[in-house]
Amino acid sequence: MLILAFESTAKAASVALVRDGVLLGQTTQLSGLTHSRTLLPMAEDLMKNTGVSLSDVEGFAVAHGPGSFTGVRIGVSAVKGLAWAAQKPACGVSTLEAMAWHGVAAGEGSLICCCMDARRNQVYNALFQIHDGRPERLCEDRAISVEELLSELQSNDWTPFLVGDGAALCSAAFRAADFAHTLAPENLRHQSAWGVAMAAQRQEFVPGDRLQPVYLRLSQAERERQARLSQN
Amino acid sequence: MLILAFESTAKAASVALVRDGVLLGQTTQLSGLTHSRTLLPMAEDLMKNTGVSLSDVEGFAVAHGPGSFTGVRIGVSAVKGLAWAAQKPACGVSTLEAMAWHGVAAGEGSLICCCMDARRNQVYNALFQIHDGRPERLCEDRAISVEELLSELQSNDWTPFLVGDGAALCSAAFRAADFAHTLAPENLRHQSAWGVAMAAQRQEFVPGDRLQPVYLRLSQAERERQARLSQN
Repeated sequence: MLILAFESTAKAASVALVRDGVLLGQTTQLSGLTHSRTLLPMAEDLMKNTGVSLSDVEGFAVAHGPGSFTGVRIGVSAVKGLAWAAQKPACGVSTLEAMAWHGVAAGEGSLICCCMDARRNQVYNALFQIHDGRPERLCEDRAISVEELLSELQSNDWTPFLVGDGAALCSAAFRAADFAHTLAPENLRHQSAWGVAMAAQRQEFVPGDRLQPVYLRLSQAERERQARLSQN
Repeated sequence: MLILAFESTAKAASVALVRDGVLLGQTTQLSGLTHSRTLLPMAEDLMKNTGVSLSDVEGFAVAHGPGSFTGVRIGVSAVKGLAWAAQKPACGVSTLEAMAWHGVAAGEGSLICCCMDARRNQVYNALFQIHDGRPERLCEDRAISVEELLSELQSNDWTPFLVGDGAALCSAAFRAADFAHTLAPENLRHQSAWGVAMAAQRQEFVPGDRLQPVYLRLSQAERERQARLSQN
């Protein structure tokens, strides 16, 4: 299956073409430009440079969250539009599960700790273990404080391998607490569309209108509205 | 220093923008399209999608070989042209040293075995060890038979981490000989321009006309000519 995959949930904007688990091409930018401006041109350029046309693509995959609310919406909306226009199925995958694929490099048995900066001293996190060359999920996606995460990790003997745009943040806290861990090198730390395509491979592809963003937490506007309502 | 880096020595064509060791963007295609057709359009698209102009670039880096003779010539020629036109310095780095950066993920102390398929049952190879988050060279670039490489690796206790387009070839031979090793996951196996930029960081940048391809071996045409000459 030829998958065109998108990742736009954080700083990285990334597009990849993966056929039956084999990478055909990927383009990623971490320059801070607005994803709404760069994501679809990146896809167009990638297809041009790999000689793939939209009609060749058999399914679309997207990181559906958690992540930046705007970034998640941009990715999910772009894939809904593409799936509708091209009449091809789509698949939404967890941003954390997608980045866990970067941990395969750490080797069999490694504990992969996926971290995204969720602000307010929290990270979006999930834990995986590498088994048979793929990440196996150990817990659900969650928003958790860095302190809670550290305390949970300290209760076992593994040395976690940290990936994600929140990895450096967690690494700093772990170092301060003298807790042994490995920070993924820069080329593996950020989200990638390759990871999204790999995570999508064993998942169900559905009509694009069934894709839903997964935020894990309420947005700031919703929190403030609820606070106002509860005061009245 | 903002480096625009190129890798075209084998199947992968890759372009990256790296500023002071931090990746701004990268695009890679492994679709088998001719590098002479895709490399410069990929660079142009990458700069457009990262909001970087050619005048922002402070230096060009290229994998100068070993590798496919045509691929090496395409990359080195493209960078010579860019450096001349933009009046910026350039740096040629070993393809093997560039891909050794993919091994940083294997962790401190790991032995990185860089392998490119050189045909005729040989690989282009060099060994590195990860130290302080960067690869340190253990031997010069060389063309070596897979059997010789295996025999050399068997004489020490390390479990090598195999990267490069010849990694799968070596892995098959090592498995047949029951020799323990780790094959890099697919996202780290192929050459990348990110590795080229990282390898270039501590090297001297020179005027583009001083760049030279490094082939390690004679081309088939040169070998055949020498064979004919020695017969006459």
